Amino acid sequence: MAQWGESMNRLINLLARLPGIGPKTAQRLAFHLITQDMAQVQNLAKAMIEAKERMGYCSICFHLSEKDPCEICQDSRRDQSTICVVSDSRDVLAMEKTREYPGLYHVLQGAIIPSAGIGPDRLRIKELVARLTTGTVTEVIVATNPNIEGETTAMYLSRLIKPMGVRVTRIAHGLPVGGDLEYADEVTLTRSLMGRRELS
Amino acid sequence: MAQWGESMNRLINLLARLPGIGPKTAQRLAFHLITQDMAQVQNLAKAMIEAKERMGYCSICFHLSEKDPCEICQDSRRDQSTICVVSDSRDVLAMEKTREYPGLYHVLQGAIIPSAGIGPDRLRIKELVARLTTGTVTEVIVATNPNIEGETTAMYLSRLIKPMGVRVTRIAHGLPVGGDLEYADEVTLTRSLMGRRELS
Repeated sequence: MAQWGESMNRLINLLARLPGIGPKTAQRLAFHLITQDMAQVQNLAKAMIEAKERMGYCSICFHLSEKDPCEICQDSRRDQSTICVVSDSRDVLAMEKTREYPGLYHVLQGAIIPSAGIGPDRLRIKELVARLTTGTVTEVIVATNPNIEGETTAMYLSRLIKPMGVRVTRIAHGLPVGGDLEYADEVTLTRSLMGRRELS
Repeated sequence: MAQWGESMNRLINLLARLPGIGPKTAQRLAFHLITQDMAQVQNLAKAMIEAKERMGYCSICFHLSEKDPCEICQDSRRDQSTICVVSDSRDVLAMEKTREYPGLYHVLQGAIIPSAGIGPDRLRIKELVARLTTGTVTEVIVATNPNIEGETTAMYLSRLIKPMGVRVTRIAHGLPVGGDLEYADEVTLTRSLMGRRELS
């Protein structure tokens, strides 16, 4: 790549460090950027720095937000008795898209991964427990991912929180809507069977 | 996405304008960026602006370069009698990777696309013709893409340059190495047949 010059190589290398961006895509992106107007490049550079500057974590639920507390925690119309626990700020957005959840959130900022040495102390679990001590919250919905780490985290939370007299529920496992029974894995299908409900 | 704040939305929207980056990837990239250290974000922002500032087009061959003339045009060890014509600066890099081409380049910065109103005057064709008037160049290898636009451009260049007494060649069409005859399209296979060579 020597023919493109040092500044270009540096940009390509930095872009290639972004998640999901391989060397080929990084090259295409860099090429695209330098063929844009300087104003557009500056716009993007500025937007990156501004977002980094302004965004922070809500001190109550640890969701990414420009405001602290975040808009959801500040919204008194939301059901203060339910907390939905998720691993990641992006999961809050996914839940909000359903427009079906009226309660609050708590972002763990990860999941328990014993093999990687990530224990409960690395997550925002003690902050969650602190939120439960006031007695306002009556249900914690554990919406960690349906994988080993998410399940481990869910089990841990359940054992920790249930003794506090707070109801702990787990989002349902089953076949995705629009999915195909034939292609479902056995574990999902078993869970789907176990979670069967009376048709009304 | 209202929950992530305005600065984040702006960043996501700008990222989603990059080629090959959809809204979902833009969100993932923005999320990744703001969870990095400020120094890293500033590094990337700076690299973008610096690359844009420093990179320009070589005034001889119109390849993207920090230097003018570019390193290839400045390299006296390269065969000055051959010019390989490509559509895009990225094609120069692809050719250079083969380490098999010792000559010079000329980047057209596009191809003739009549349906989009892109005629020969929009490309760096008159600059190519000017390079041929000195008599140093004896062969022009047309390495535009093997699609309709590339072929149209190749035909146009051939008709324009041959009368100047310069040999005009076209890179070979055929089956890609490692390809499968069974899955080759008819046109490629026909070209592959037509371009057959004596086995030594």
